[in-house]
This record gives sequence, structure tokens and C-alpha cells, in this order.
Amino acid sequence: MVTTDDNKTILDPFGTTIIEDYDKLYEEFGIQPFKPLLNQMPNPSMYMRRNVIFGHRDFDRVLNAMRNHQEFAVMSGIKPSGEFHLGTLMTAREVIYFQQQGAKAFYCIADVESYEDNKIPFERSEKYAAGNIADLLALGFNPKEGYIYRQFTERRVKDLAIIFGRTATLATMKAIYGERHIGLYLSALIQAGDILMPQLKDFDGPKPTVVPVGVDQDPHLRFTRDLAARFHRKYGFMLPSSTVHKIIKGLDGSPKMSKRKPMSYFTLHDRPESIAKKISNAFTGGKPTVKEQRESGGIPEICPVYELCMYHFEEDDKEIIKVYNDCRTGKLLCGEHKQKAIESVLKFVKEHQQKRKKYVDRAKEILQVE
Amino acid sequence: MVTTDDNKTILDPFGTTIIEDYDKLYEEFGIQPFKPLLNQMPNPSMYMRRNVIFGHRDFDRVLNAMRNHQEFAVMSGIKPSGEFHLGTLMTAREVIYFQQQGAKAFYCIADVESYEDNKIPFERSEKYAAGNIADLLALGFNPKEGYIYRQFTERRVKDLAIIFGRTATLATMKAIYGERHIGLYLSALIQAGDILMPQLKDFDGPKPTVVPVGVDQDPHLRFTRDLAARFHRKYGFMLPSSTVHKIIKGLDGSPKMSKRKPMSYFTLHDRPESIAKKISNAFTGGKPTVKEQRESGGIPEICPVYELCMYHFEEDDKEIIKVYNDCRTGKLLCGEHKQKAIESVLKFVKEHQQKRKKYVDRAKEILQVE
Repeated sequence: MVTTDDNKTILDPFGTTIIEDYDKLYEEFGIQPFKPLLNQMPNPSMYMRRNVIFGHRDFDRVLNAMRNHQEFAVMSGIKPSGEFHLGTLMTAREVIYFQQQGAKAFYCIADVESYEDNKIPFERSEKYAAGNIADLLALGFNPKEGYIYRQFTERRVKDLAIIFGRTATLATMKAIYGERHIGLYLSALIQAGDILMPQLKDFDGPKPTVVPVGVDQDPHLRFTRDLAARFHRKYGFMLPSSTVHKIIKGLDGSPKMSKRKPMSYFTLHDRPESIAKKISNAFTGGKPTVKEQRESGGIPEICPVYELCMYHFEEDDKEIIKVYNDCRTGKLLCGEHKQKAIESVLKFVKEHQQKRKKYVDRAKEILQVE
Repeated sequence: MVTTDDNKTILDPFGTTIIEDYDKLYEEFGIQPFKPLLNQMPNPSMYMRRNVIFGHRDFDRVLNAMRNHQEFAVMSGIKPSGEFHLGTLMTAREVIYFQQQGAKAFYCIADVESYEDNKIPFERSEKYAAGNIADLLALGFNPKEGYIYRQFTERRVKDLAIIFGRTATLATMKAIYGERHIGLYLSALIQAGDILMPQLKDFDGPKPTVVPVGVDQDPHLRFTRDLAARFHRKYGFMLPSSTVHKIIKGLDGSPKMSKRKPMSYFTLHDRPESIAKKISNAFTGGKPTVKEQRESGGIPEICPVYELCMYHFEEDDKEIIKVYNDCRTGKLLCGEHKQKAIESVLKFVKEHQQKRKKYVDRAKEILQVE
């Protein structure tokens, strides 16, 4: 909900997820607004159309490559510490979107990070990883046109970390990651290696590369762009670009989904009853009484159930705009919409789980794990 | 020169190289004196007999393996940042000694360290490395019974660094290495990997391992022993043992040979005239006049030329004891002894350079460099 100077409310179905201070992001940190690029995109994704991807760094470079049918890459990954949740679903879909638009796609199992940050032994993260990659394939990632790898077994990213290490001062690491152990800093250097590996000779050299990130991940991208500049002479690196997406609210109304709050999130592999329960117990933008809501409408801007559909589970723009309007005018009540949301989510989850089964063996084969 | 309570001088040809505070090393840091083990050694090396190796950590374990013909390993290496000097000559000879006593010998080209610490690009350290390994082979290392490798191309040591990283706190790293960049800390973790790699399954698992170190390197060994204990459950590591040697004085009388003081040291590949000049210009333990020296003798305890022979270039114990006594009694003057020393050193260096030529191709082959 955006309010103008004269206090007239501007209705914007894609203006939810309040970020405290956009101006700061745009001006101070140099993230650029994505909207001006939208009508230049040949085939914008749902996240782009709905302003979930609200910002970028140097995305123009990737856009040019897309429009001129030149080589470009997309890179993201997952920390193998559990099942696919909505955050990893988002980046996976973004990777798949760019792959379908012609990008060389790189998808990383960040097992060094899960080891250093979450103390997950490699024997265990291997198992998560196989499941995660089965999810990725079920979502539409084409492994023949993409490269899937584990950090711990990919020599190139470890070697880049060693090479980058010489310029990584303690002050920089502390500023970005706080006072952590060396392993955590090492995994940050490996992540920089992940982002720049697509530009190595082994993958046909320098090219525009887009990294879809949540706004909270931007400091890492800045760190990597700095490394790319320092090692430009040696490798010819272009600065990597990013698209920056908003962070979906927790179902319980908390600002962010989090494992520490089980009612705030679900994974694609939770039991359907559990997912349904979490959605039906969710916080909403509804009014205290039906009467009030019929009269003055709900507030989708603060509603995680609306966000759930708008971000992920309602693919039809017209339909989501209708939901927004029907909520605002009091036509659609929370109970009704929750029911609808549950149906959409469970339909997706069940189909996905079916599809995923077929990919488990292929995933193990790709990762060379048992 | 050691003085007892009643100020009677005890003559000790192998008591040179004053270490400021042995008691501190023995008591506070837990380095143990080597002497009590000497007569248990089946075939002690020159460095052991002459108290150049004056201390150890847990060497009993290695000694037992040697006496019982059980498996054990020796590990050391070189930072490929230049030619072999007397410090690297010492550790190389120690490694070769233990190899000849039956150890599995590991010799590491610390190219990650030379990159992180000295900014030497890998393309350049490769070239030094080939020369260094030719030296090692010329000195008698048997590559068929040993393993020579580069840190940057040896997956196992890099992976151990990643695994160890999780337990390496900033406080520990700063205490040992000071406030340095992450790359330097990473190379310290890789060095711990070097020391423990001989105990991995790929090399037939846990075994006593001796690391010959200069006393200034002991903190690194303590760090690695701590990691060995932490990861004992996972890998079954035994704590690595060490022999600890004294640091030879600079020829110019400074406490330590150093590249920053060209007159303090020479390499095995300097021109013979240059080596001769450095020795003849060296500081000695001589008296201001010949007369005085004839009357009251020289002081070999403070003489780097005496040390040069005692550490490295006079293999006959009787002969070096004779030099010591002849100096103390004023029979041998500095000019004479310098001449003798120059002859011994140049004989060694010339023979070594001849031998080394034959090993350059073999060295390149072992390191897989051109």
C-alpha cells in the first residue's frame, strides 16, 4: 500500500512486501530499479512482471546479450541443509527461466557452506543434495544445457577461492559476515568462485552472468564484483550482474520465513495436511469481523497468504489482480481465499512430488553420489 | 659457551646457537629435550649427534616405530620462492635421513603459501619448484619411496583445509600469524593438511609422523596437533611428532640468515666466487689481533663460520671437534679456517650442481610442469 503526499491510497497488487528503505538500496548501495527495464524484456518472468524482482545490478548487460542472442550465463545454487522451501523454489525458477531464455545455466550445491556454516557433514549433505537436484530437474532445469556441481568436488571453485584469498582482508570479511571462523570466510570465497566460474576458459571465457539474489544476499554480490574487478586483468572477468528479489513474508506474519519458526514456512516435501494447516492458521490482512471486512475490505499488502499466491502459486496475472481487488473491496473473505490458496499449493506440491520421483536416480547420477 | 654457577666454562662444540630461553621452550611450550633419546636412536643423524636437533614433540612414538620396524612417515617441504638455501638444505636432509631409516617420505611444494604470503604467481612458482625438486633428488631423496606434490594441485590437502576451517577461530589465527588476510590463514590450514595427509586412508591410514622443524616453526606444529586431536574421531589421526632444530646464524653475525640481508646467506646455486666472498667477509669469533688470538683462543660459540661447518659442511665428528678445540686454544686462526670452510662449501656446491643437472627433467616429470 503506497500513500502519496495528499494521502490518496494508490492500489498496487504488486507493491506488497514492504522493504524498509528502497531509497537507501537504490541510492546508497547502488541497486538499480528493475521496472525501467521491464518493457525491454522480450519475455519477462512472472517475478519480473509482479515487481517481486524489484532491482538489479548491471542487468542491462545481460539484457543486451539476450536481445542480441549473444552468450550469457545464469548462476545460483542451494545450501544442501534440508528440503526445497519457497526461497530455493524462487531462485531455482529464476535459473530455469533464464536457461529457457538461452542462458548457460550453472547450479551449485553449496556443501562447503552447509559444512562451515551449519556443521553438516559432507556424507549428510550429499543426501540432501540428491533430493534438491531431483527437485530442480522436476521444476524444469535442463541438465544437458546446464552444469550442476558440488562445491566440495569442483576443483575450479576451490582454486578460485585460493586465488581470491590473497586480496580478502579481515576487515572486509568482518564487515560482510561478522566475526566468524576461517571456514566461513573460506566458504564465502568459494561462493565468489561459484559466481565467476562461468567466465573461466573451461566454460568459454568471459560473458555476462546474472545471479538472481534475494535483497539480503546483495552484499555477497558486491564482494564478488569487487573480486571480479581485481582479477579482471588475469581472467578478463566481466562484473557479474544480478536481479534482486523481495523476501516473502512468513506465514505467521513475521518479516521472513525461517526454519526457526516452523509455522512461518513449509517445504515442498511436507505432508499435505501439514501445509494445509500452516496456511489455514496463517496471519492475514483481514478485519476482526466479517461485517467489517465486507464493508471496508481486507489489506492484501500485509497478507502472507496473498503473497504466497502472488509470488508462487497463481500463474495467471489476471487472476491474481482479481484476488487483490476482491480482497480490497470485501468481496473475498480470508477463509475463502485460504481455501483457494491451499488448493493451489497442494495441487502444485502433489504434482511436483510425483514428477520429482522420476528424477531421483538422474540426480544421483549427476552428483555422482549413492 | 655455557657457564656454570661457579663461572667455570664448560666446553661444548655442539652448544653454539644460543636460544634465548631453553627453559621456556621446554617448560612453557612443552618442547622436550632431544638428548635423552639420542642413545636410543639406532643410527642418529649428524644434526642429532651435534645437538642441532635439540628438541622434539612426541618423538618417542616415531622412535618406537623405527626400532620395531613399524610404519612411520616423515613430512616437510619448501616454499618455492627461490633456490635452495641452508634452511631448506637442512630440512631436506632430515627428510632424506628419515626416508633412509624406513619412513614413507612426503615432500611438499608449498606453492599456495608462496602465492598467499609472497604474491608469487603459480606460473612462476612452478619454475622454482622444478629446480627445488631437482635439488632434493640430487641430495638423495628417493622418489620411488616418497611422495612429492604441489599444494595447489593436491586435492587432499586443499580438502583437509576446508574440513579443518570450521574449527579455526579468528583468535587462534591471529595469535599464531598476526592480523593477516584470509589467504594467509587458508595457506596455514593447507599446511596442516600437508602434515596430516600421510595419515589418510589413501596412504594406509594413521601412523606416527615426524615433521622436522626449525624452532620458529613450532607454533604451526602445535596448531596442527590441536587439529589432529579435534579430528581424531573422524580420521583416527595420531598427533604428529616433530624434531626441532636450532636456527643457523647469519654469516654477517645476525641471529638468522635472511634474504633481506644478502651478506647473511647464500644459496646452493650462487656463483662460487660469490659464496667464497661472503664466507671470507663473514663475522667470526676471532680476537682483534693475531697475537691475542694465539694467546687466548677464538670463540667458536659465536662464530657463524664454525656453525656453517658444524651444521652442514663437515661430516666427520672428530674433525669438527678438532676445529673447535684448535680455535679455542688459538691454534687455528680465522683466516685459515675461513679458507678451509670455503674449500668444503665450494666442493659440496660444485658436486651438487653437477649432480642436480641430471635431475631437472625427472623433477619436471614428477611435478608435471614444463
